[in-house]
Amino acid sequence: MTSPLAAHDPRLDLVLQRDVDVPVDLVWKAWTTPAQIRQWFVPKPWTITACEIDLRPGGVFSTVMRSPEGQEFPNIGCYLDVVVNRRLIWTDALLPGYRPSPKPFFTGALELAPAGSGTRYTATAIHGDEAARKTHEEMGFHNGWATVLDQLVAFIKAS
Amino acid sequence: MTSPLAAHDPRLDLVLQRDVDVPVDLVWKAWTTPAQIRQWFVPKPWTITACEIDLRPGGVFSTVMRSPEGQEFPNIGCYLDVVVNRRLIWTDALLPGYRPSPKPFFTGALELAPAGSGTRYTATAIHGDEAARKTHEEMGFHNGWATVLDQLVAFIKAS
Repeated sequence: MTSPLAAHDPRLDLVLQRDVDVPVDLVWKAWTTPAQIRQWFVPKPWTITACEIDLRPGGVFSTVMRSPEGQEFPNIGCYLDVVVNRRLIWTDALLPGYRPSPKPFFTGALELAPAGSGTRYTATAIHGDEAARKTHEEMGFHNGWATVLDQLVAFIKAS
Repeated sequence: MTSPLAAHDPRLDLVLQRDVDVPVDLVWKAWTTPAQIRQWFVPKPWTITACEIDLRPGGVFSTVMRSPEGQEFPNIGCYLDVVVNRRLIWTDALLPGYRPSPKPFFTGALELAPAGSGTRYTATAIHGDEAARKTHEEMGFHNGWATVLDQLVAFIKAS
């Protein structure tokens, strides 16, 4: 199945790719189960206080992130492409049911492939312009997404 | 297959539904073939001077509309859902490859069902807020989409 994603554009996209020693199906489950998302999805001591998932194109993917000071940041979007154990694409440019959203920021793509007994993990943030890419970079994309990948691997190993 | 669309919201959505006496498969073909789109997609004497279609989720759907005075209006978006002879959903909130777009306006949905030997034709424009819905209404949604449906039916009958 050909990927529907556009070719990577370093001016507009941010990518984290790493091989991790946990199996593909457990990474998939951690990304697609609300109770598991809560365990690793934001760098601690931030927390996820709510998560809703309807795992089909057009279905909701929402989280509420809570800062250590107690401020809550809701994120709501929908899935675009769901290929079990392989590829998950979602966006905040569309609300569930594909309604255009008030605050589009990025489309996210998680691509998984077997790598030995582990997983080649590729997470991409796709932006509409350079300003959005820069903002995301300054918000700490690289450290943040690497940290939550560490948390994801630790969570799976401890489960 | 359940529709991924949200329930219709009259504050935000505009709908044209009509039964027409041309078969579903020819309506589908007219909507998904660039050479056919050029024949009926905008109210005459406007014309379509270019159309690109990659008929899969994430694939391009673009048209260039030309006014009688010669001004060109490009529209670019991507498909979200493609169910042959049944349902076509696209949006200008995302560019091809699911990249967030600079000027999101609406998500469109074409739903087709057999009605006798003809077609129950339902076309919906889904907006993010009431202002966008009103703008679309004032641009002439109801007359415009009804006129192009007349043109579509006439085109199919003449083919």
